[in-house]
Amino acid sequence: MKPSVDELAVFCKKKGIVFPTAEIYGGLQGFYDYGPVGVELKNNLKRLFWQDFVTQNEFIVGIDGSLITHPKVWVASEHVNKFHDLMARCSKCSTPSRADTLVEDVTGLNVEGKSVNEIIQAMVDAKVKCPKCGTLLTDASEFRLMFETNIGPEKTDKSIGYLRPETAQLIFADFKTVFQTSRVKFPFGIAQIGKAFRNEISPRNFLFRLREFEQFEIEFFANPKKLNDCPLYNGIKSQSVNLAADNKEGFTKAKVDELLKKGIFASQWHAYWVTAYFNWFIKYGVDENDLRLQPHNKEQLAHYAKACVDIEYKFPFGWKELHGDADRGQFDLTQHQKVSGEKMEIFDEASGEKFVPYVAAEPSQGIERAMLVFLFNAYNDDKERGNIVLKLHPALAPIKVAVFPLVKKNGLDEKASKVNEILKVCFNSFYDESGSIGRRYARQDELGTPFCVTIDYDTMNDDTVTVRDRNTTNQVRVPTKELAGRIAEYISKGFK
Amino acid sequence: MKPSVDELAVFCKKKGIVFPTAEIYGGLQGFYDYGPVGVELKNNLKRLFWQDFVTQNEFIVGIDGSLITHPKVWVASEHVNKFHDLMARCSKCSTPSRADTLVEDVTGLNVEGKSVNEIIQAMVDAKVKCPKCGTLLTDASEFRLMFETNIGPEKTDKSIGYLRPETAQLIFADFKTVFQTSRVKFPFGIAQIGKAFRNEISPRNFLFRLREFEQFEIEFFANPKKLNDCPLYNGIKSQSVNLAADNKEGFTKAKVDELLKKGIFASQWHAYWVTAYFNWFIKYGVDENDLRLQPHNKEQLAHYAKACVDIEYKFPFGWKELHGDADRGQFDLTQHQKVSGEKMEIFDEASGEKFVPYVAAEPSQGIERAMLVFLFNAYNDDKERGNIVLKLHPALAPIKVAVFPLVKKNGLDEKASKVNEILKVCFNSFYDESGSIGRRYARQDELGTPFCVTIDYDTMNDDTVTVRDRNTTNQVRVPTKELAGRIAEYISKGFK
Repeated sequence: MKPSVDELAVFCKKKGIVFPTAEIYGGLQGFYDYGPVGVELKNNLKRLFWQDFVTQNEFIVGIDGSLITHPKVWVASEHVNKFHDLMARCSKCSTPSRADTLVEDVTGLNVEGKSVNEIIQAMVDAKVKCPKCGTLLTDASEFRLMFETNIGPEKTDKSIGYLRPETAQLIFADFKTVFQTSRVKFPFGIAQIGKAFRNEISPRNFLFRLREFEQFEIEFFANPKKLNDCPLYNGIKSQSVNLAADNKEGFTKAKVDELLKKGIFASQWHAYWVTAYFNWFIKYGVDENDLRLQPHNKEQLAHYAKACVDIEYKFPFGWKELHGDADRGQFDLTQHQKVSGEKMEIFDEASGEKFVPYVAAEPSQGIERAMLVFLFNAYNDDKERGNIVLKLHPALAPIKVAVFPLVKKNGLDEKASKVNEILKVCFNSFYDESGSIGRRYARQDELGTPFCVTIDYDTMNDDTVTVRDRNTTNQVRVPTKELAGRIAEYISKGFK
Repeated sequence: MKPSVDELAVFCKKKGIVFPTAEIYGGLQGFYDYGPVGVELKNNLKRLFWQDFVTQNEFIVGIDGSLITHPKVWVASEHVNKFHDLMARCSKCSTPSRADTLVEDVTGLNVEGKSVNEIIQAMVDAKVKCPKCGTLLTDASEFRLMFETNIGPEKTDKSIGYLRPETAQLIFADFKTVFQTSRVKFPFGIAQIGKAFRNEISPRNFLFRLREFEQFEIEFFANPKKLNDCPLYNGIKSQSVNLAADNKEGFTKAKVDELLKKGIFASQWHAYWVTAYFNWFIKYGVDENDLRLQPHNKEQLAHYAKACVDIEYKFPFGWKELHGDADRGQFDLTQHQKVSGEKMEIFDEASGEKFVPYVAAEPSQGIERAMLVFLFNAYNDDKERGNIVLKLHPALAPIKVAVFPLVKKNGLDEKASKVNEILKVCFNSFYDESGSIGRRYARQDELGTPFCVTIDYDTMNDDTVTVRDRNTTNQVRVPTKELAGRIAEYISKGFK
């Protein structure tokens, strides 16, 4: 059973995972800080994404761009003109609300892609009320979601810089520099992990909708005539992502073929990336029944997209987007060509052709949403044990191993400290000597630590220790000498 | 011979390491984007810092805080009132300049800690001119260095949020939450890596003074009565940092003792942290002769500091700060107590005492400055080879190993691809089949790749490959089966 989003938030604060920023000043809506446990979890998650989709994927290179960005980037991308939300301000109490989500909550309809007037009409027809004071909402106006600041000593319209609302556009703005300075060949993708900022009218649902968050986006560039030559699709294997035909869970080649034929995916490359991510979430422990594909219909499609498929997760507050992947075609590079005057048509040596590169796929992932999904998925209120057990995949677990002396005397604590010191070279390990062993196990269960090592009186005789598995509470006896190797094996291959 | 800062900047752009953001729009002064090679270098650097000083150090835990921050955090820290630079605006051409650095450049004096009036007087006395048009500068005024934005739909003074100008204050603002939710015991440190923003009047020297940059700061909290019980100092060893008495380079215990006696360091803990960083830079390859300690005298000390020691590096533009470490005492927590009304005095179970924790050390490191130092240090214009050789420590190298087929036929290229695929599971490896072998070696030399593997006709007979060492160009023959293990060994223990 998943906890409610509020239960999870309380748990995350209690355990030093994540909590509202600067709470001594009352916090700031939509901004969170990560504690000692959370920062390790988030770093592991980012490292896994980067390892599996960038350094180990021969088609992808990375960049890391500025957060305060040149305003013209957002003119070209049309964010300056179009990246707005519809704000309904209560005529009585002045509380601002987001009109579209209110309409969706009240009517159950999806209003994505509807015009401003249509949404206002729907709001009035549905008699939507102010969530704070209950007054009927009658009007709404557009509100720009980009945060702005001023660069340099002047504070004028000319000195405005925007905090980037997404990582994607920096990839387009830097495309030519990367293409010219790196030895990439089509097709290839450019990836970026980093912060993005959106001045949401009503941030909500804990880490789900934030004003400051992190994204991991890949823009996958291809020769526009060659969108269906994906070797990963045809051989349908990749080192990092289990997309094999004999896959027991997730997408098999047969299933992907079928969806491609139905036109759900725009191309082989689009199909590859969406299903690779789907299978990646399953690989790291997300329940397949909690995931589904959601293709956008024509009305929902953003103006730049030829096709888009979301991966949705069954949150306690409903099926919501976890991952999105659009075929953006040549829209962005063409726009940047128009606004910058810089030619984006390039010469491809392999094909001997000139073209504006085509974005066949744009895997777009929010880091916090992925983290939220892994937390919901891992959270187990174990009535028998009487504590929460956070069943995170060992690769994600903030602490890999905890070391306990059975008692704090007779040299057991010194021995345990030494064992911890050795393990610390390879793993994030944690030493704990206070409270009963049961209490110490429970604390580590709650932090998702997959393995606990206990030093007892037998250790002093035969130099073996007990290793306890978080998920099953099963225990094995391991010689201290072999401990580091065995823990490494349990992390990569599971406890035996 | 180090390159000039301009030569290094040109080289970094050419190689896709780092370049001005969004250059198609003319870039933005003080903002840079990292290319495919640079993002790996920067990630390696951040990972090493975190591994050596956080996860492997039993005294330190991490956090990761918000970039847009509560304005009261900066009231308490006195940034709102005091974090200003002195701007001299030219009366003729209106160009803004930073008065203190101009005075220092012209007179050679250090004006840190001087009052506004003293600096203006010094500027006038020294007949400092506008760097753009040469007009005499006669006046200057204070300019706030924090970037500001507005949070939420209103744009009023009440909705202002500051982009954090440092990572340190978030550690203080979250101190109590971390203390209450984590199982830390005094003394302990809280570390943070992340972006910080300063609206510098004149960003300059490539990555040296940026408007957007990353910091790695640790605040080390102790019982105010126990600043000299550092076990790392007394045993003077640490897994992560080579601070042993038998150390051949860097600080030995005897040297540290001497400086502590002289009062250069405020306490044992202060001494430990400054010298640990000094030795860390040497460990990863920085020439000891390019590093020196620079204690601040009373006049230079910031208002919050009891003592401060910088580590300076000999940049081509002079000896400048690479790292700073202040004893901040109880200033910050006391300030936050005052402004928030939240009690910062805590009860320490171990000593049975109540106290406001004392910041004995604040190792403060700019990521870009460290990167710049490693780049200057690694850059070798090898006249014999006819190319640049970037002699980065293997742990920092963006690409660990490159794989080349001698020729693109007779199955050598397929074999090389397979070797690359295997290596890619463990290392960031790169496959290259185009151009002469010499040209391919040169390209990898320039990216700092420590090892190159060549597949030749012998490989097809005896399944061995050539491994070439970047620094010496020495080559050894290695069985393909043993290749991954040998590369791992070369990375950790050096080429043999």
